[in-house]
Amino acid sequence: MVYIAIIGFGNIGSGVAELLSANSAKVADALGDTVELKYILDINVPVGSPYEKYFIKDFSVIENDPEVRIVVETIGGAGAAYEFTRRSLLKGKSVVTSNKELVATHGAELVSIARDTNSNYLFEASVGGGIPVLRPLAQCLQANEIEEVYGILNGTTNYILTKMRSDGIRFEEALKQAQEKGYAEPNPESDISGKDTARKICILAAMAFGRLLDPDKIPVKGIQSVTLDEVLEAEKQGGSVKLIGRAAKLPDGQIGISVEPVTVSRDNLLSDVNDVFNGIVVRGNAVGEVLFYGRGAGKLPTASAVIADVIDAAKHFHARKRIYFEDGRNDAVGELPVWGNTINS
Amino acid sequence: MVYIAIIGFGNIGSGVAELLSANSAKVADALGDTVELKYILDINVPVGSPYEKYFIKDFSVIENDPEVRIVVETIGGAGAAYEFTRRSLLKGKSVVTSNKELVATHGAELVSIARDTNSNYLFEASVGGGIPVLRPLAQCLQANEIEEVYGILNGTTNYILTKMRSDGIRFEEALKQAQEKGYAEPNPESDISGKDTARKICILAAMAFGRLLDPDKIPVKGIQSVTLDEVLEAEKQGGSVKLIGRAAKLPDGQIGISVEPVTVSRDNLLSDVNDVFNGIVVRGNAVGEVLFYGRGAGKLPTASAVIADVIDAAKHFHARKRIYFEDGRNDAVGELPVWGNTINS
Repeated sequence: MVYIAIIGFGNIGSGVAELLSANSAKVADALGDTVELKYILDINVPVGSPYEKYFIKDFSVIENDPEVRIVVETIGGAGAAYEFTRRSLLKGKSVVTSNKELVATHGAELVSIARDTNSNYLFEASVGGGIPVLRPLAQCLQANEIEEVYGILNGTTNYILTKMRSDGIRFEEALKQAQEKGYAEPNPESDISGKDTARKICILAAMAFGRLLDPDKIPVKGIQSVTLDEVLEAEKQGGSVKLIGRAAKLPDGQIGISVEPVTVSRDNLLSDVNDVFNGIVVRGNAVGEVLFYGRGAGKLPTASAVIADVIDAAKHFHARKRIYFEDGRNDAVGELPVWGNTINS
Repeated sequence: MVYIAIIGFGNIGSGVAELLSANSAKVADALGDTVELKYILDINVPVGSPYEKYFIKDFSVIENDPEVRIVVETIGGAGAAYEFTRRSLLKGKSVVTSNKELVATHGAELVSIARDTNSNYLFEASVGGGIPVLRPLAQCLQANEIEEVYGILNGTTNYILTKMRSDGIRFEEALKQAQEKGYAEPNPESDISGKDTARKICILAAMAFGRLLDPDKIPVKGIQSVTLDEVLEAEKQGGSVKLIGRAAKLPDGQIGISVEPVTVSRDNLLSDVNDVFNGIVVRGNAVGEVLFYGRGAGKLPTASAVIADVIDAAKHFHARKRIYFEDGRNDAVGELPVWGNTINS
């Protein structure tokens, strides 16, 4: 039996608990052992919930329970999540997360602690939700020099841009519809400003190139100022406006990263990645371009990536070399070359 | 130092040698050790080749050299390749291959021998060339019950169907162009008859559902009889004719598998997978549909998948539970339900 604790019981955290239970036979078969939930840490105890008995409010209970070897961090943000992740790793517990903000800001320190304490910090779910991308990048493409990674990394903005085109409506109206459908937060700033995409492309670049740059220092343009005219003009010219995060290793050794709305021509599959879907392209020097596509967010897709990491952590309690990168927060950000005709900016 | 032998020095085998040398720094970094070529087994020694010194003609040299712990089988077919793979695994050597014919026919026996001798039989390159798909399916999606796998698995037939549509030409003319470009073999039978796709969908189904069915017993329809009229009619109705391999776990526990040309409607990304590219969709009960896309064949893309498996084998000399399935060659093949409106047959 492998005991886990879930810290933060919001949308993703509760999805992890539910999916663990719904697919328990599949999980047990994949692991050759059962995964048992032991604690849920959250301020709010949902009265009457089937999970009520697991709830605790004191993190040190988890920290000091040697039976708990894997902590699922679904608190979000870089406050308590950072402290609890650090303390878990320092105790030699592996931590699995979907928290892109924490990985993008403190990831280099956290993977370094994990290495020191022979544990693992795993975060497949932090980019592309349930779409397998970080592990295939690190593992299946490891015989390649990675040249470039780019894609549609935020479902909210992609939904808005898709709606503007299909319904011929302005940004403000499309945002309102996205909020009504629950695809955009009441405060949508981190999505529409491009900040969420910036975090994700920094994580992808760290996995591809070995250094984690500061997402606050890279050039980021959101979609607030994309006009309906621009969207319709792009369509007339045979393309689609997409918010693209892009990172490349430059000849001088610097990493170039940017986030901006770009017109993607129709011969690139990303132009057909619509609604809340994500698409991520990796270009390696041997394989050429490969694309990973699917639901980039959502409770169960994201939980499925979290649980795959839990199984991986339970199979390998020693630190994995390939999930590692250096701190590049003080690195200068290189300037990306202008794109050719695959994607015209 | 990890010593390997390459058996069969054709297009893929020589690609493995070349890529190992070209990307040696990347490979050494990923593995934390160097991969050294020790032998090449082939009947033809290419005089003057930089690899001349590695050539041998007697397999037992490899078999009896304990220093060689990984054998790369790129002979193809199910004759000598089968014998040498068996003998390698029985000696506890791991075998890595791109040989879909061998995996599809004797894979269940070979993964079983690998399990018994605590070695690995790895074949990511046998489906989708360089596209990561088998490992993400087995690993990143392991928290999902897999419901269905389908896709465009053969680049030659996809090139022919793409050309028929784009140039308005008949099958015979498009095949001739594919042969001139080297995308189709002088004897294209196994591609155009759907046999190659059948082998690949059987391998995918084995990874997804745990049983390897006999590719000769599943219903297979190739593209020989697809007419230009059908291709143009599909386009008029907003779709594309694609050769689709498809497998699903049926409610009665049987596995349904088929290969046939299908009209894929434009709202499915597979309709935009053109030329020699492959696209593989996996549907899990939590993640929904995810798609993997890229070059499904070719010397360097395929070699990059082979070398990723070599690195994996070198990191884990013990048998991996997840690369395992039962022999289902005597299983009845279930009948797939007719497709809904995502893909109309």
